[in-house]
Amino acid sequence: MKVKVAISAHHIHLTKKDLDILFGENYELHKRNDLSQKGQFASLETVKIKTLKGEMVLRVLGPVRDYTQAEVSKTDAYKLGINPPVRNSGDIIGSEKVTIIGPNGIIEDKECCIIADRHIHMSEEESINYGLKNGEIVSVKVNGEKGGIMNNVHIRVASNFSLEMHIDTDDGNAFLLSGGEELEVIK
Amino acid sequence: MKVKVAISAHHIHLTKKDLDILFGENYELHKRNDLSQKGQFASLETVKIKTLKGEMVLRVLGPVRDYTQAEVSKTDAYKLGINPPVRNSGDIIGSEKVTIIGPNGIIEDKECCIIADRHIHMSEEESINYGLKNGEIVSVKVNGEKGGIMNNVHIRVASNFSLEMHIDTDDGNAFLLSGGEELEVIK
Repeated sequence: MKVKVAISAHHIHLTKKDLDILFGENYELHKRNDLSQKGQFASLETVKIKTLKGEMVLRVLGPVRDYTQAEVSKTDAYKLGINPPVRNSGDIIGSEKVTIIGPNGIIEDKECCIIADRHIHMSEEESINYGLKNGEIVSVKVNGEKGGIMNNVHIRVASNFSLEMHIDTDDGNAFLLSGGEELEVIK
Repeated sequence: MKVKVAISAHHIHLTKKDLDILFGENYELHKRNDLSQKGQFASLETVKIKTLKGEMVLRVLGPVRDYTQAEVSKTDAYKLGINPPVRNSGDIIGSEKVTIIGPNGIIEDKECCIIADRHIHMSEEESINYGLKNGEIVSVKVNGEKGGIMNNVHIRVASNFSLEMHIDTDDGNAFLLSGGEELEVIK
């Protein structure tokens, strides 16, 4: 099977509570553009994350979630002087602490910063069609001058998901992928 | 066979002529530290490379060479707004043009900027022992949470080389390698 790849730049998800602290009571995010996964969008809003070593502007993705989570690349992590774990979305216990700065407020030392694992979204129907289960691990082959194989690619199945592989900018740049390429999944 | 990996950050090699232009007539580089390949060193000197979109400071590696060559990652290339080809060292015809700025002079629109290909240095003796020829292409396996396989790794044999794999910071960060890891070579 083939899967289209998308490159996720660093970004942040916020809870309603943290959005209120950072942007003001009952603040609503302003959609800039839809993302490929249904209901998800990039907002016009950004926050700054700050560590002892550095700081970085992250775009806020909407809608609000049950957890606040900053997703950065290893390249970003070196600039920030932190060592975030490679994690599935939402798995933030023991992740790196960063201070989040918004126009209305600051959240200090928030345990929320991860490097997102490589993953493939798919619907339940696609999961059945391809014979892949939620949580299964596959590999993905990349052709080209800096091609190779990415291991530890996590299958994520949900009714509102559609078939797409997500990797971070380090994987994208290392394998010379710019997004939209069709890659081969190896079970 | 196993090979130890080293991560090459962006850097520049200069000809004697270009060193003279950038730093002054008969200028000599000052060694900061030796590199693992015999005779090669990081100097105290840096230059700035400049494009229409951005600029970046690169450390000068010595000694002077027969060609001037700036080596950057794809991540750097996005910042600079250029599209350097993936090349073997010295293969700079048709590479990206950047302006090089030193304390004594400027070299405008120099065709010199590449993304270095993944490669393994080895001596002639090591080449015979491992049954690998100069120019041969191998793959290299990486374990770990963001492991996988790097294809198109070029074997480079010379009497003054010693066994070591060189990758750029994008490959290092994508595969969570920090340098010094022993990786498996797949023929």
